[in-house]
Amino acid sequence: MSERPTERVPIAILISGRGSNMVSLVTAAQEGRLSADVRVVLSNRPDAPGLARASDLGIPTAVLDHRAFATREAFDAALADELERRGVRFVALAGFLRVLTPVFLRRFAGRVLNIHPALLPSFPGVHAQRQALEYGARVTGCTVHFVDEGVDTGPIVAQAAVRVRDDDTEETLAARILEQEHRLYPLALQAVLTGRARVVGRRVVGVEGPGDPPGPDAG
Amino acid sequence: MSERPTERVPIAILISGRGSNMVSLVTAAQEGRLSADVRVVLSNRPDAPGLARASDLGIPTAVLDHRAFATREAFDAALADELERRGVRFVALAGFLRVLTPVFLRRFAGRVLNIHPALLPSFPGVHAQRQALEYGARVTGCTVHFVDEGVDTGPIVAQAAVRVRDDDTEETLAARILEQEHRLYPLALQAVLTGRARVVGRRVVGVEGPGDPPGPDAG
Repeated sequence: MSERPTERVPIAILISGRGSNMVSLVTAAQEGRLSADVRVVLSNRPDAPGLARASDLGIPTAVLDHRAFATREAFDAALADELERRGVRFVALAGFLRVLTPVFLRRFAGRVLNIHPALLPSFPGVHAQRQALEYGARVTGCTVHFVDEGVDTGPIVAQAAVRVRDDDTEETLAARILEQEHRLYPLALQAVLTGRARVVGRRVVGVEGPGDPPGPDAG
Repeated sequence: MSERPTERVPIAILISGRGSNMVSLVTAAQEGRLSADVRVVLSNRPDAPGLARASDLGIPTAVLDHRAFATREAFDAALADELERRGVRFVALAGFLRVLTPVFLRRFAGRVLNIHPALLPSFPGVHAQRQALEYGARVTGCTVHFVDEGVDTGPIVAQAAVRVRDDDTEETLAARILEQEHRLYPLALQAVLTGRARVVGRRVVGVEGPGDPPGPDAG
């Protein structure tokens, strides 16, 4: 008897720009590291460069231009309709620059993840890497979290730390954090899609990794 | 010609309790890893267990009981007097549970360090380890920072990250953070005392370490 293959969960990936985390998720799914069937890569911006990258990877794409909707709620209702029509069961935000309202989130309750380029709760919101540099943080990183109705406040699934270097600019720091994002997001999403990750109050357990604890940054 | 030995800076270490970070600093000084002459270990509590540990290590101790002073400012003035009388040039807080007022800080401007058991600006104030657990952080750590007139807001000298485990209690997490504190504080203080660390705006540079960047916590 052969093992039953892991069920692949139909997901959507939402982008607004380059979609580099989208590529890392699609690649993970195509390589069998992520039990996901990427039904659609959807952008709220028609000119998002990530749309062509998704097509190149053989993934259906869609555009839902937020400027065509009078309110956030109207956009969010159309977005939820579109995803449900495609049978999407789970949503991964990957540089999607729209705040989702309860109109959307109540229809996908507990089924939306995001990745943020800081160790939340430090440096929420926009320009997280710049915030970390300007604050003088010596360690920052990235966070995969469930999306709730706040800004970057949902339960944390996984985090990775990144050391800040003396000569870092916003660009060099963002690039090193992005490397970790590309590693972390597939691992965290896989733990959620397979049910290994469990939400207990605000804590998410079951996502533990093999890594050694990171050391001090002074020497 | 022999090399001129590094100048040892006269310092005080202020405690309120066990003083485990105090022991790590004193040991580093005695082993030559910290260019400090520990002139006094001072507690605001007469019953602080760290006082006996300091005596055992051959360090002079003093008690300045805050209950004997009508105001924070009166205590702070007496504290500054006491330290200056002993020739202290730099102050390391190590579990010192008093907020210092400008009365003290203006006399030791830029010459007071503290260690905090979280990756600031996350989880400032008391019970930082409990805050991290309750928030559901997957990475926390410790921070050595200059003390300014806010609560845990001064420029950051060094940080070390610590992974949160699924089965962590406040006690187990605090113990693993404490291990990193004991490594980090002597390294960070040494960088400051030798002038290697430089404050540029809010950023402190010159304290970079040899460590590899910490990896993701999911696997």
